[in-house]
Amino acid sequence: MPDYKAPLRDLRFVRDELLDYPAHYQRLPACRDATPDVVEAILEQTAQFCEEVLAPLNRVGDREGCIWSASGVKTPSGFKEAYRQYVGLGMPSLAHEPEYGGQGLPESLGLVVSELVGEANWAWGMYPGLAHGAMNTLSAHGSAEQRATWLPKLVSGEWTGTMCLTEPHCGSDLGLLRTRAEPQADGSYKISGTKIFISAGEHDLAENIVHIVLARLPDAPPGTKGISLFIVPKFLPGADGGLGARNALGCGSIEHKMGIHGNATCVMNFDGATGWLIGPANEGLKCMFTFMNTARLGTALQGLAHAEVAFQGALKYARERLQMRALNGPKEPDKPADPIIVHPDVRRMLLTIKAFAEGNRAMVYYAARLVDVVRYDEDAAAREEADTLLAFLTPIAKAFMTEVGFECASLGMQVFGGHGYIAEWGMEQNARDSRIAMMYEGTTGIQALDLLGRKVLMSRGEMLKAFTRIVHRFCKAHEGDAALAEFVAPLAALNKEWGELTMQVGMKALQDREEVGAAAVDYLMYSGYACLAYFWADMARVAQAKLAAGSGEADFYRAKLATARFYYQRLLPRTRSHAAAIQAGAASLMALEAEAFDLGY
Amino acid sequence: MPDYKAPLRDLRFVRDELLDYPAHYQRLPACRDATPDVVEAILEQTAQFCEEVLAPLNRVGDREGCIWSASGVKTPSGFKEAYRQYVGLGMPSLAHEPEYGGQGLPESLGLVVSELVGEANWAWGMYPGLAHGAMNTLSAHGSAEQRATWLPKLVSGEWTGTMCLTEPHCGSDLGLLRTRAEPQADGSYKISGTKIFISAGEHDLAENIVHIVLARLPDAPPGTKGISLFIVPKFLPGADGGLGARNALGCGSIEHKMGIHGNATCVMNFDGATGWLIGPANEGLKCMFTFMNTARLGTALQGLAHAEVAFQGALKYARERLQMRALNGPKEPDKPADPIIVHPDVRRMLLTIKAFAEGNRAMVYYAARLVDVVRYDEDAAAREEADTLLAFLTPIAKAFMTEVGFECASLGMQVFGGHGYIAEWGMEQNARDSRIAMMYEGTTGIQALDLLGRKVLMSRGEMLKAFTRIVHRFCKAHEGDAALAEFVAPLAALNKEWGELTMQVGMKALQDREEVGAAAVDYLMYSGYACLAYFWADMARVAQAKLAAGSGEADFYRAKLATARFYYQRLLPRTRSHAAAIQAGAASLMALEAEAFDLGY
Repeated sequence: MPDYKAPLRDLRFVRDELLDYPAHYQRLPACRDATPDVVEAILEQTAQFCEEVLAPLNRVGDREGCIWSASGVKTPSGFKEAYRQYVGLGMPSLAHEPEYGGQGLPESLGLVVSELVGEANWAWGMYPGLAHGAMNTLSAHGSAEQRATWLPKLVSGEWTGTMCLTEPHCGSDLGLLRTRAEPQADGSYKISGTKIFISAGEHDLAENIVHIVLARLPDAPPGTKGISLFIVPKFLPGADGGLGARNALGCGSIEHKMGIHGNATCVMNFDGATGWLIGPANEGLKCMFTFMNTARLGTALQGLAHAEVAFQGALKYARERLQMRALNGPKEPDKPADPIIVHPDVRRMLLTIKAFAEGNRAMVYYAARLVDVVRYDEDAAAREEADTLLAFLTPIAKAFMTEVGFECASLGMQVFGGHGYIAEWGMEQNARDSRIAMMYEGTTGIQALDLLGRKVLMSRGEMLKAFTRIVHRFCKAHEGDAALAEFVAPLAALNKEWGELTMQVGMKALQDREEVGAAAVDYLMYSGYACLAYFWADMARVAQAKLAAGSGEADFYRAKLATARFYYQRLLPRTRSHAAAIQAGAASLMALEAEAFDLGY
Repeated sequence: MPDYKAPLRDLRFVRDELLDYPAHYQRLPACRDATPDVVEAILEQTAQFCEEVLAPLNRVGDREGCIWSASGVKTPSGFKEAYRQYVGLGMPSLAHEPEYGGQGLPESLGLVVSELVGEANWAWGMYPGLAHGAMNTLSAHGSAEQRATWLPKLVSGEWTGTMCLTEPHCGSDLGLLRTRAEPQADGSYKISGTKIFISAGEHDLAENIVHIVLARLPDAPPGTKGISLFIVPKFLPGADGGLGARNALGCGSIEHKMGIHGNATCVMNFDGATGWLIGPANEGLKCMFTFMNTARLGTALQGLAHAEVAFQGALKYARERLQMRALNGPKEPDKPADPIIVHPDVRRMLLTIKAFAEGNRAMVYYAARLVDVVRYDEDAAAREEADTLLAFLTPIAKAFMTEVGFECASLGMQVFGGHGYIAEWGMEQNARDSRIAMMYEGTTGIQALDLLGRKVLMSRGEMLKAFTRIVHRFCKAHEGDAALAEFVAPLAALNKEWGELTMQVGMKALQDREEVGAAAVDYLMYSGYACLAYFWADMARVAQAKLAAGSGEADFYRAKLATARFYYQRLLPRTRSHAAAIQAGAASLMALEAEAFDLGY
């Protein structure tokens, strides 16, 4: 198992040098507590906790898994103690309201914690991660009384939370959901139904678990317009604010799955469990989207996390493993063979992972800055602009980052050759753990329809333009800069093509809606590469400027430039195949009758 | 767990209609016993055995795994009984010499058995698969006495075999190997050393296991020129041809790995074990290549196998799972939602798997026909021509098919959404099992260096031309055929570009050998897509001809054409990004110092 090291230098580069978070926090009154000293202290504390406590439990979690019994779910050895430390450090409360015991720090700073925790131990991180989602939902949609009842215990970390959406027959299509909510005389509801795939649905880390459940009222209209949101706790609140009676719900079983064994994926049975409506009746799905957008950014982080782990493991191995000689002659003639990092193809794999990890880190903290603006900015126009950009970037970040995150996890194995397949190196766990990210919180296909259909085309391209305008301004500002020409020229061309491809699909979609579905995933992936092209060009700009100013960390900035160059030369050309696939249209997908798929048997 | 169905109709299409195996077998005197009736009987028998016996054990093997103890390795429940049936059906002897009890049928027919067995249960199939490799090595390089001693028991299936190459410090770089062979007075050798990653190295299916071991003689030159090949059995042969004394070797442990749990991956310790030299001293690696080429084609099959399994599982689910409505309006309005096969993106995933599985099946049986020619043709010129083509296609088949096989296995999961991550559906096992194929028998990177460096460039492009000439003739023959123009025109352009790219890399490599390594994997993937473009165009030709002739199976041939069209429109454009990466050169890979990769911490 490789040791985990928090990428603090790179985080500081992205947050301070590229995105100027210090100025961003100073500009927003609600974020002014996040001074450089406070941020630095949190980074250091989180890094230490992740490196020393969580990372060593990652393999344990995979090997032991969670154990179900009728009385509950036992998490792997050490998980409970780690959670106690996490609570002791005050980490659950970081980005929550002081009114309920929170530290009132920005959501974007919470994301740093999520990144490092996720890199050290994704399965463990899902327990507080889901609780964070439940808190955000309660903060946004709960009544004052509900907030006062539930948030203090959640913010302190004494209780955790979940989101209960999926049912056996309904995943992407929530309109089909059947869980019922019967109103009671006292204003509460009796919730009945079965939910599946409930991450952290039952466990032994906290004394109570607050489920946010989607269900239907008796008179609800069918489909997505008849879904409401309920709070349904494992234990009802007691008179003193502590634990009351056990509620009529339980975990029926846990799934056997490919990875993230340390997190319990539960079948939850609600048998007339007591719950309370959150937000307006029949508007649960709309409320849920508040949660889902942050959850999607959280899942995007998973793509980054597994790429980071793959990079650290593969780099260490590539430097130590001696095998064959460099093609141009021995590099270390006194050793029996050269370390495999001398081989161009091993470097191709390492640089691919590096370029995706660092590029995606830039994208995710760019989006996180928008989250702050949407949430805290006092200027409504600024909020609206950020909201548009964030809505555009969220499906890209979620799907693109998890797709390439899985690719990186697989490349991380590949650098090890056959050893990559063996559990003790940790790389195969990383690949297994990463694979879920392309499916939960909306599959890549669902994100792609959201991006191209609901957002770009429904806004008649305006949501795309909100981003391409920024890219255009960047290209204009640097078009005369010879040192950046290798990035700016192709970026400008790509930015133009992005709009043209969008127009072409839009025109075809007017004739045939299937064209949207046919182009969607390739369009999303194209967009992801285009976004990263912008972030890499901008990172190259910063690196050039630092080098020109005679920085004492010249090696660091030269490495950034080299990685930017690699991205442009070796990864960005993938847009060529996505562009061709976008333009190919729907015909070749729709021609075959469903019955004609299996005539080969 | 999806049921497995042998793709017999597609196999007949590829073997009889596309590649005309009946004529091929009649042309080669050694293959004339493989009459259509015999082939059909073997197909039917193998299909039944795979569907009814092996497929149901696939999940069992994954769940139970192999259990090590000091006295041996226990295989999963049912594996032993299935092996007994396999032996009872005479399947191990199919493609081996009648002199030793074999049926003397063509190697290419043995490959059909390997395909179906591998699709039903790859982990199980590796036990007889490795034995087959050991037999081929003994047939090719053993003395008459060695063949008479070892082959009868191996051919009958009473004994199995392995190939022992890898050591802890040496995988791709066999020149580093240390296992020693001390000559004894009686002409035998004492073999000492540790081998790792020995598939089927120890198990309870057969009473004896014949290891083919790479080791060094005391006076051997260093590196790959000092490696010899030895037969080292678990039990020495007894006076009566049965089992004699236990040899000084044993399985020290088995690996915990990502997948293929049903096959024991063994650490084998040789502690002065008795062995016998096969072939000339110090030429073991050359002899081993006989085995490795067929083993690589066998591993190529693994890519096909996992794609086939992914297709069957995903197709069934896509037809049954109801979720959302078709973008153009309900397709099954009486149901609560449409089956997900109506969605263009689900079709994109299914068709991707289908196009790769069927295209790769054509490639593998094309290569298998060459294997027959190399082995059985009486005309030396024909043998040499086939040998050149086979040497060119083998690394492409091995690496390309396993890379896209893993992609297909992952897409098979993706069609299921979150359910794809859950063990009971079988898709995540399929993905885990498929992942090893890109690493063992030479990683994708090693295959790519073999293709571009050792073969294409060392032959000054002649090995590529052996194949592109065939493509060129095909394009010329059909250039006036309007019905095939959509395939022939892009294929001709690609074929030309393939040569040009090769020339460009060759020129750069004259200046800098690193250029070979930098381009190799993209060159191999480009070549794989180009090969499949040829096979899909040729399949389209057959389908068009059958339709023009008024075939009674019009739906089958229309599906072939639709799949060919999908391949050309949606998958072949991936050559654009590989071509760009090939042309990008080595600079962006080699710029970063090994020490500068981790400055972000």
